Amino acid sequence: MKSPKYKLFEELLYKADIKLNGDRPWDIKINDETVFTKILESGSLGFGEGYMDHLWDCNQLDEMINRVLKADLDKKITGKEKLLLGKEKLKTLINPQSILRTKKDVPFHYDIGNDIFEPMLDKYMTYTCAYFKDSDSLDVAQEQKLDLVCKKMGLKKGMRVLDIGCGWGSFMKYAAEHYGVVCDGLTLSKEQVKLGIEKCKGLDVNFVLTDYREYVPTEKYDRVVSIGMIEHVGPLNYKEFFECSTSFLKDDGLFLLHTIGGVETVKSCDPWIRKYIFPNGVIPSVAQLGSSMENIFNIEDFHNIGPDYDKTLVKWYENFENSWKNLEEKYGDKFYRMWKYYLLSCAGAFRSRKLNTWQLVLSKIGTEKQEYSRAI
Amino acid sequence: MKSPKYKLFEELLYKADIKLNGDRPWDIKINDETVFTKILESGSLGFGEGYMDHLWDCNQLDEMINRVLKADLDKKITGKEKLLLGKEKLKTLINPQSILRTKKDVPFHYDIGNDIFEPMLDKYMTYTCAYFKDSDSLDVAQEQKLDLVCKKMGLKKGMRVLDIGCGWGSFMKYAAEHYGVVCDGLTLSKEQVKLGIEKCKGLDVNFVLTDYREYVPTEKYDRVVSIGMIEHVGPLNYKEFFECSTSFLKDDGLFLLHTIGGVETVKSCDPWIRKYIFPNGVIPSVAQLGSSMENIFNIEDFHNIGPDYDKTLVKWYENFENSWKNLEEKYGDKFYRMWKYYLLSCAGAFRSRKLNTWQLVLSKIGTEKQEYSRAI
Repeated sequence: MKSPKYKLFEELLYKADIKLNGDRPWDIKINDETVFTKILESGSLGFGEGYMDHLWDCNQLDEMINRVLKADLDKKITGKEKLLLGKEKLKTLINPQSILRTKKDVPFHYDIGNDIFEPMLDKYMTYTCAYFKDSDSLDVAQEQKLDLVCKKMGLKKGMRVLDIGCGWGSFMKYAAEHYGVVCDGLTLSKEQVKLGIEKCKGLDVNFVLTDYREYVPTEKYDRVVSIGMIEHVGPLNYKEFFECSTSFLKDDGLFLLHTIGGVETVKSCDPWIRKYIFPNGVIPSVAQLGSSMENIFNIEDFHNIGPDYDKTLVKWYENFENSWKNLEEKYGDKFYRMWKYYLLSCAGAFRSRKLNTWQLVLSKIGTEKQEYSRAI
Repeated sequence: MKSPKYKLFEELLYKADIKLNGDRPWDIKINDETVFTKILESGSLGFGEGYMDHLWDCNQLDEMINRVLKADLDKKITGKEKLLLGKEKLKTLINPQSILRTKKDVPFHYDIGNDIFEPMLDKYMTYTCAYFKDSDSLDVAQEQKLDLVCKKMGLKKGMRVLDIGCGWGSFMKYAAEHYGVVCDGLTLSKEQVKLGIEKCKGLDVNFVLTDYREYVPTEKYDRVVSIGMIEHVGPLNYKEFFECSTSFLKDDGLFLLHTIGGVETVKSCDPWIRKYIFPNGVIPSVAQLGSSMENIFNIEDFHNIGPDYDKTLVKWYENFENSWKNLEEKYGDKFYRMWKYYLLSCAGAFRSRKLNTWQLVLSKIGTEKQEYSRAI
């Protein structure tokens, strides 16, 4: 006999062609019906936590999430919170991405352990969307992405380049090796600096452990890049982020901004992602970026490579899965299900095209059109 | 002896390296000092009207305007209105681009007389920014622009294409001739329909004299384009414009939007341009377009070809100047100075990069990534 809550979810999921306890890969198997109450009480947070706690299972998480988002199910639940893309109201007087807060939040994720990231990522350790042009290999696709960025900015030997949010230095390493540029990179993760210095040995690459709002360069840069960092900046700080970026840049310079992008303006991200993966992460919208860069930057070029993040995340998941036997003892089952849910639910969100990846080439307003490439 | 107002303007223009009564091409020659009062009273409207009335002269209008805008002089006058990019407050309860209003405003400009436009424009009569890729010829550059649009949208023989704001049908003619597509075009100008039908004889091209808000197509289109029309739509109507566009389009279709773009959000355009050239025209910002297309369209691609509009406008001005001897008697001196000021002040605005030209390739959210090209 089906409970009323079971019937409610069965009916809801039917709209996305997902069956409760069905046998297709994207169907959801219910192990414990308390998950329904959890979802009704805390939306996507309860959904994700339910997965971590084995309350439900699904063989193809990514495809299930894709279907949920495409059918707009997140907009059809009217509980305390929305089902998937939770839209909690933040007290906007508090800046959730203040310098002090960010210095805690960023290490939360990136200091988890290089032993998780090293086997999961490509050989450059690029922790952002790859660019699958003519190969299925993650290593090749990440090199193609790094090269795409270099080409779009017209890098030339000897140029000074700043990377805001440099991670383990993958872009700087690639650009210094292949284009002979001199790089400074900013990050707030000590683990990234440690491994990054090692990986960039012998190159003109320098790591600075600081917030972009506190950085004072000795001279201006020919190029600035920020690849997958603005997702930590937060809407309240976008304008300051662009003001800082332009202040770091020579007048005839270019700024390449690479970011995940959302189809609507929100003030916070999915509550499960915020709690377990990226504290205070927010996915920007075109409107938010556009209004924040008014009278500062012209968009020269905007390239959407969103569907490639679906592929990238699936590759990361496969690598993670393959390396798990070496990590299992240290991290345990709950971490495994958390990480799997993170990678595959994000893959599904990109597949639904509610999330995208944008590369923007920006120039200072008032200066002549700069040479840049639309290299594909 | 210089008057106080003369000194005020002398000092102001000094910041843009423009001299009053200097002898460089971009210097301003004052014929009648009442122009100063006019500018202080009615900003850019008085400035433009002063030119029409011979109160001042300048050999290189475009370069002078470029310098004024680059030096932000429009933001340094604190009179009743701003100097150049006037920002009058509109009663936002009134929709200045209502269907009724637009039906009056659009013919105001486009019905001026085909004898002005025919010698000024290229052979296809494309009245939007050209694309100067590898030639200085306006004819070639306009064909390259039309081809760029076709390539970006991946036009294939037999596709049904809708052109919202089709002008004299230049895009439809080119696309039908070179890509074998079937086109419907919407315009509000009877003069455009008349000449357009003539120019597109023998092609699968159809003109419809209607507002996009009143158009009910018999079946959906594979592709929708709108080239240089949204500048007449107005911020209050952007959302409805995108809703209409998506309703005309098949789910796996693409929408190419080509528009002039501004570096900041405004509600109305320069008051001189509004009074004499484009009644109720408004240049959109990234923020306005972005917020209006939320949950409707994904931006797949965004290409800024703004500096090419500077070149295009200078070519139009040269053609206009060369044809003037045949038009002089009919249109008279005041029209000549109005038209010259229009073309060259706009060229200057694009040169300053405060105005840009954007081509956006848009796809419906939720549908798979469509094949599109970043053809340069």
